[in-house]
Amino acid sequence: MSQTNNLQLSGERFAAVYHLTATTEEAADRAWDICLEQTVEFPDDLISRPDIREQIIGRIASLEEVGPDCFEATIEFPVEVAGAELTQLLNVLFGNVSIKPGVRLVRFELPESLSSLYRGPRFGREGLRDLLQVHDRPLLSTAIKPMGLSPSELAELAYQFALGGIDLIKDDHGLADQCFVRFQERVERLSDAVNRANRETGLRCLYLPNITAPLDQLLDRARLARQAGAGGYLIAPGLAGWDAMRCVADDDRCGLPIMSHPAFLGAFTTSRSGGISHGALYGRIARLAGADATIFPNYGGRFAFSTDECRDIVAGCDASLGDIRPIFPAPAGGMKVQRVPELCDFYGKDTVLLIGGDLHRHGSDLVQSCRQFAESVRSNC
Amino acid sequence: MSQTNNLQLSGERFAAVYHLTATTEEAADRAWDICLEQTVEFPDDLISRPDIREQIIGRIASLEEVGPDCFEATIEFPVEVAGAELTQLLNVLFGNVSIKPGVRLVRFELPESLSSLYRGPRFGREGLRDLLQVHDRPLLSTAIKPMGLSPSELAELAYQFALGGIDLIKDDHGLADQCFVRFQERVERLSDAVNRANRETGLRCLYLPNITAPLDQLLDRARLARQAGAGGYLIAPGLAGWDAMRCVADDDRCGLPIMSHPAFLGAFTTSRSGGISHGALYGRIARLAGADATIFPNYGGRFAFSTDECRDIVAGCDASLGDIRPIFPAPAGGMKVQRVPELCDFYGKDTVLLIGGDLHRHGSDLVQSCRQFAESVRSNC
Repeated sequence: MSQTNNLQLSGERFAAVYHLTATTEEAADRAWDICLEQTVEFPDDLISRPDIREQIIGRIASLEEVGPDCFEATIEFPVEVAGAELTQLLNVLFGNVSIKPGVRLVRFELPESLSSLYRGPRFGREGLRDLLQVHDRPLLSTAIKPMGLSPSELAELAYQFALGGIDLIKDDHGLADQCFVRFQERVERLSDAVNRANRETGLRCLYLPNITAPLDQLLDRARLARQAGAGGYLIAPGLAGWDAMRCVADDDRCGLPIMSHPAFLGAFTTSRSGGISHGALYGRIARLAGADATIFPNYGGRFAFSTDECRDIVAGCDASLGDIRPIFPAPAGGMKVQRVPELCDFYGKDTVLLIGGDLHRHGSDLVQSCRQFAESVRSNC
Repeated sequence: MSQTNNLQLSGERFAAVYHLTATTEEAADRAWDICLEQTVEFPDDLISRPDIREQIIGRIASLEEVGPDCFEATIEFPVEVAGAELTQLLNVLFGNVSIKPGVRLVRFELPESLSSLYRGPRFGREGLRDLLQVHDRPLLSTAIKPMGLSPSELAELAYQFALGGIDLIKDDHGLADQCFVRFQERVERLSDAVNRANRETGLRCLYLPNITAPLDQLLDRARLARQAGAGGYLIAPGLAGWDAMRCVADDDRCGLPIMSHPAFLGAFTTSRSGGISHGALYGRIARLAGADATIFPNYGGRFAFSTDECRDIVAGCDASLGDIRPIFPAPAGGMKVQRVPELCDFYGKDTVLLIGGDLHRHGSDLVQSCRQFAESVRSNC
């Protein structure tokens, strides 16, 4: 390797915090390994250039034992290594170390020079409240399902939900562009139905079609939905890629609020000792990638997140992240209307409560079921 | 829910095989839960429409105990539910169940009506061999690194690797479009360097720049690279999304072979009881998404894949998948030239051997180190 010193980076760094499963003897080596693996990916002893050692390689800012065989390592990376691209920022945070056992990304902090490269959510919590003109309570949300209903049947459901006072009506995330439920027809019919209900109620319910799609169709679907009168978008970044969501959020021709769906992301949080923390994944990363609300499985539903993990997500939704706006946590997954008092108590008013199947369980009058949901929120939150 | 029976699907199904961590008492319920969760996502007792029950919901084709508290469930889903989109196919295979503990996707089989919707790798194993005119041995690969070298320094490395007989020279996956190593300059200089070496050697070494990028720049970078004379692409689908790779593979204006990089995918395989099997993730899914070679951490390197997991990937690289071509497994990650005999024995000739840092360890003459690598492969494989 040449001995020339050419690099002239700013010296500014961003911090990533990892939990390492390691003994006291191993911990420092494991932390140093991350410093190399996420930057030069080269044997330590073969890096002879002082500028690369000093300016490119990660730096251990702290290393502390935080539990039995668990160390918390704060690694600082040069801001220039992350470039101006979400794909590369995610790569530095967790690219190759994702494959190493016993490394968990628990959080990260970005200096203004890096966070300002990301617009984040176009609306955020306050922007979404302004759109809906709802400022004093949790937002009410439900999903259009089950798959197998025709677009006109789904539109009738959406109409009743909107009449009943739901704020955000999203497609079930399994509705894509199947032969029995075509995207364009669905978006047109459901947008019309919800906008018709809004004219009757005077409310501002938003319909969010699922635009998770092949990448060469994603922005077209987003623009088509806006033209058809949809009120927002549902995207599953685990399927489309985090940067796909960022593209939609940043594109002025799309310009509607985004709910992020957790499909295909589960593997990141199933292991306690690997993956990415709930707060970093569903909170900070979702915000960087432009979500205005982030759906995740509520504790005690049909998935298995704990109350602590849900609190971590709530914290990630408004933790300091430069000028990037706070967003709504949107607990979901087998939630029931009867749990509203408890959910209001746990999440407070800055949340989206997403109740799906259970709204169908209280008789055939969906409008009435939605009104009960709304009434319970109003009287408990 | 209306009682009309409207659906008229073909009845054709595709099969996904899961391993469930469950007791004998739980297993059938857990399998049935997947049938619902991945399709209607609706309470079983509320689905009154016979056509939805019969035509949309997944079906348990078999359920067998395969280990202590481990059941193998084969679930058959209607082909129409997966639509014609990789994003939705992945969603049906592993979307919401990714979030449930103790569910691992171990493999899947697609009927011709579904597999024929995917072109898969543009070249595949034989196509890549034809490009290189190398038919009788493993392919030799290395990476351009460390990050921090200038484009002209990296180009000098590439020139020496190509002179030394390397077949596939890829960017290190941390090289994106940073201020100290701009994409365009790097691609132009390295393509020139490798093509100059090829004119001297008469060989056909390919340079594969890393085009993992924001989605609105991905295809532009791929086309720019081709115009600059690059020989292929490196993409990390964990960062860009699986469908981003599929887009590049399918686009005739790109049209070069693709190596898939495992960055950010580690969480899918760190848990034995969750995630996706090595063979399904790095084999079948990578092929569906258009990879011609799939990089993964070799056993015994600085990551932690086992020999069985590596064999599973090799099997996934040429398991039957409609007309989708077999691809090259590309073991990597701390591999050493001295291990070539063992690697040849383990992987056979249909593999890409990717050795990075170790080529720099045998003196300053990189050309000579590459020739030793090549010679070892020729005499051992």
